[in-house]
Amino acid sequence: MSEQFQELNVADFFYKNKDLVGFDSPHKATYMIVRELVENSLDACDGHKILPDVRVTLSKVEGAGTEERYHIKIVDNGIGVPLEAVPFAFGKVLFGSKYSMRQNRGTFGLGGKMSLLYGQITANSRITITTSQGGGKIYTFEISTDIRTNTPVIHRREEADNKSHFRGVKIEFDFEGDYGKARDKIIEYFYETAMVLPYAQLTFIDPNGSLLFYPRITQKMPNPPLETLPHPHGVDLEMLKRMIMVNPHTSLQVFLSKNFQRVGERTARAFLRSNGFDPHVEVSELNTKQLTKLVTALREYPDFLPPDPSCLSPIGDELLKEGIRRLLSPEHIVVTTRPPRAYEGNPFIVEVGIAYGGAIAPPDKPGKVQLYRFANKIPLLYDEYSDVAMSVIQSINWNQYKIKLDEVPLAFITHVCSTKVPYKTAGKEYVAARPEVEKELELAIKQAARELRVRLSKMEKAEYKERRTEVLRKYLSMMASFSTFLAEKNKEPNIDALFKEGIIKKHRKAELVEDSSSGDLVDETKSEDDKAEGGESESEE
Amino acid sequence: MSEQFQELNVADFFYKNKDLVGFDSPHKATYMIVRELVENSLDACDGHKILPDVRVTLSKVEGAGTEERYHIKIVDNGIGVPLEAVPFAFGKVLFGSKYSMRQNRGTFGLGGKMSLLYGQITANSRITITTSQGGGKIYTFEISTDIRTNTPVIHRREEADNKSHFRGVKIEFDFEGDYGKARDKIIEYFYETAMVLPYAQLTFIDPNGSLLFYPRITQKMPNPPLETLPHPHGVDLEMLKRMIMVNPHTSLQVFLSKNFQRVGERTARAFLRSNGFDPHVEVSELNTKQLTKLVTALREYPDFLPPDPSCLSPIGDELLKEGIRRLLSPEHIVVTTRPPRAYEGNPFIVEVGIAYGGAIAPPDKPGKVQLYRFANKIPLLYDEYSDVAMSVIQSINWNQYKIKLDEVPLAFITHVCSTKVPYKTAGKEYVAARPEVEKELELAIKQAARELRVRLSKMEKAEYKERRTEVLRKYLSMMASFSTFLAEKNKEPNIDALFKEGIIKKHRKAELVEDSSSGDLVDETKSEDDKAEGGESESEE
Repeated sequence: MSEQFQELNVADFFYKNKDLVGFDSPHKATYMIVRELVENSLDACDGHKILPDVRVTLSKVEGAGTEERYHIKIVDNGIGVPLEAVPFAFGKVLFGSKYSMRQNRGTFGLGGKMSLLYGQITANSRITITTSQGGGKIYTFEISTDIRTNTPVIHRREEADNKSHFRGVKIEFDFEGDYGKARDKIIEYFYETAMVLPYAQLTFIDPNGSLLFYPRITQKMPNPPLETLPHPHGVDLEMLKRMIMVNPHTSLQVFLSKNFQRVGERTARAFLRSNGFDPHVEVSELNTKQLTKLVTALREYPDFLPPDPSCLSPIGDELLKEGIRRLLSPEHIVVTTRPPRAYEGNPFIVEVGIAYGGAIAPPDKPGKVQLYRFANKIPLLYDEYSDVAMSVIQSINWNQYKIKLDEVPLAFITHVCSTKVPYKTAGKEYVAARPEVEKELELAIKQAARELRVRLSKMEKAEYKERRTEVLRKYLSMMASFSTFLAEKNKEPNIDALFKEGIIKKHRKAELVEDSSSGDLVDETKSEDDKAEGGESESEE
Repeated sequence: MSEQFQELNVADFFYKNKDLVGFDSPHKATYMIVRELVENSLDACDGHKILPDVRVTLSKVEGAGTEERYHIKIVDNGIGVPLEAVPFAFGKVLFGSKYSMRQNRGTFGLGGKMSLLYGQITANSRITITTSQGGGKIYTFEISTDIRTNTPVIHRREEADNKSHFRGVKIEFDFEGDYGKARDKIIEYFYETAMVLPYAQLTFIDPNGSLLFYPRITQKMPNPPLETLPHPHGVDLEMLKRMIMVNPHTSLQVFLSKNFQRVGERTARAFLRSNGFDPHVEVSELNTKQLTKLVTALREYPDFLPPDPSCLSPIGDELLKEGIRRLLSPEHIVVTTRPPRAYEGNPFIVEVGIAYGGAIAPPDKPGKVQLYRFANKIPLLYDEYSDVAMSVIQSINWNQYKIKLDEVPLAFITHVCSTKVPYKTAGKEYVAARPEVEKELELAIKQAARELRVRLSKMEKAEYKERRTEVLRKYLSMMASFSTFLAEKNKEPNIDALFKEGIIKKHRKAELVEDSSSGDLVDETKSEDDKAEGGESESEE
């Protein structure tokens, strides 16, 4: 009766558990490789105020076994990777630049690396990386990862003059995959990505030679998110101990105001006073019991300002509407943006859109919900029924909004952006039901639903009036003919004028704001932030 | 324009990404802690032919902050942990005994450790472990994990005489949680676990003092799974290179027959001949190109025997039926067990049950499917709509089986057991759509559906006959009265005898096998294994 104990390193762990990172079949791996590499490229661009230009070529390698083998090449115009970081950034799992307190597409330092590892495992492929940060030199590396030790192995390293002034990263390798089955999702991925990034240029050439090209349609780009300090509401004991290790000899008051966002000296003093701490004690002198008390107090103190959203980069009402319009061509769009909130000190913003009618079809079967999910501007295409957004939509009592979810042509669009999106899987397929995120999604969707209800009510009233007008129009003309006949006149009175001059008015569209540029109807009313916090009662009646 | 690069160790990674391991809210964490510890305990028992006795006590700790704090104590009678492994087994992430080629509940060496880490992070709690392997000594450790370095810290270590002859592990610590919200899932978890483990004794005392007690109802226990070698169909280059490192100086033929299951010397020779390899070459002399060719050949060679299922421990038809009967009290149960298959060299077995009628209600809304999922005898209670079993059920054309999925009282029970269940999340919430697993689930469910259809057809026919009999019974008595009157007799002929003697027969239940012990109807026909591979046509017409 005995067991063998063993230790794994992290590269080994993910190599042995590819499903955890989304690489659970050849076609899913194909999708993940494209997606992870595109996301790293986009982070290297718009995260640094560079208009992205990302080009992906996927081609088939002939003559391998029965498995299909592909060659991927991706080129971006991002900031590039510094020479000394190249081997680790591409050849060591859990090494990266994504562990900061600001919004990034990448979070784990894992997906890109897993893509390369997948090539290595399935096709014995080394990775060729060419990069420059725009200086006089351009570097080419051929590397692989020693999985047993999670260390990079450099097979070739070259340096050349950067004659073409290239700046960015080019990656190439082979892998075994299944593009046939992955095709639809990959195309959907580029499509939805382009929708929320009109300032990006995206090119994809697939193994059949088809070209997917999304040109840049605006030069306007949101400001890149800034790096911030953690918010005091999200501290835990481990975090606090680490911070103290870096600054052991400061006073508690200075320590708080230097290490947390939204805590100035005055706030620090007020906080410490109201919790009975000595502001002048040196932080290294606090014992564990005091630290535990401090953590609890920091998490629960109600008077800290809400988290600073400058580390976030939401899509914004305008771009979101524009995206929805192009994605779905609906008749109505309502969008709501919630104010920044935080979970565990990670600020986040929820944006929601509901689109109605137009090209949207009613659900093809009961229980089906049309939901387009985005997180940090990434479209999420798998496992939607496990996503917190879906469970929120399903938990809402739609009768309250007089919306029959199974019958009306409705689509939901949700975007959660955060310094740390609480993904449930390392493959970033869906967002976990963190209570704070759940709450904000619920408020945003309900707020949008209320607005949509108002819109639909107006439309229904307008339709009723229009029907009534039509009846009047029909009988008025008969009455006019009859009166003319009785009065023994020849010329009937001009009834049309009655309508034209608005004596019998209220034509349907007149009540709604018309968006002249697109011909669609859009709501230009900004949703007021916290109105939804109060009651949930309807107001349109 | 620059980025900071940084490295994370694996404890740090999971500490920062608790959602990935299922710890995404206080109530989910409460559930995960109970579940992960129970599973480790069960592995330590039935994995070693010990009848499990697992006792869990969850109690509330008063006087903490606004968050609710709990104390958990779990005691098992498993094999215990050897003295020298204790600090690492409980204080180092990705260290464990679960990385072997045999069926275990634990797979990642992660969940138990995360439970302890969660206590440390939220409640600053050290972990107290008492263990003995049944010898003269019993050991108590108080430990924590240094997350920055992923190393255990021993705060206290005691040794005492094992007077009570204790064998097993006792773990105690505090954590912040939410039992109120976790209660239903935890109770469901124990309930479903007890259903598939009638040989286990499970005790749970909850914070309200309620006792949940499942006594052992049988001493019969399936044989524990044996450890095996990898199957050649699942090899990859990385794996092959590692194996060669351990045995560099053997000939290719000996290497194959020693390191893979189902490859004897004759098979090895036949395989090597048909793929043009020299059987006598020393494996360390193969270059990468040859190794790649060897991997492809091993994966694709059709004449290896299917994987050895002795490393697996399925529930078995009888226990599965018994479990379903107690879980759901249905009118009909059909079960199918598929033959062992493999994905990536990991053998797996799929078992499926369909239960019909009785205490099962029809779906309360369209699109809803009643599905009870098990993996390696663990009930899976979250994210069912992402599970491969659900997508398989939804993809089947049920009209083929004349079953209206939205209307009939139907429940599905699926069990996937494997040396490595392809979980999609490290929190083991659901199984990924590995094509091989998907295929087997589909075949098993279709096969069970066909049997159910036959059963329901018979029932429908029997019901039709019964109705006809009832009509006869009604008119025959009138005819008898009338004839008696016409014949001027007083005594009517005994019609009941016609029915009793079976002249007018075919009472409903007579056509079906009756299980006298339970009063339920069960199908004793064993499903023939591979019948389903062929056509999908119906046979009952």
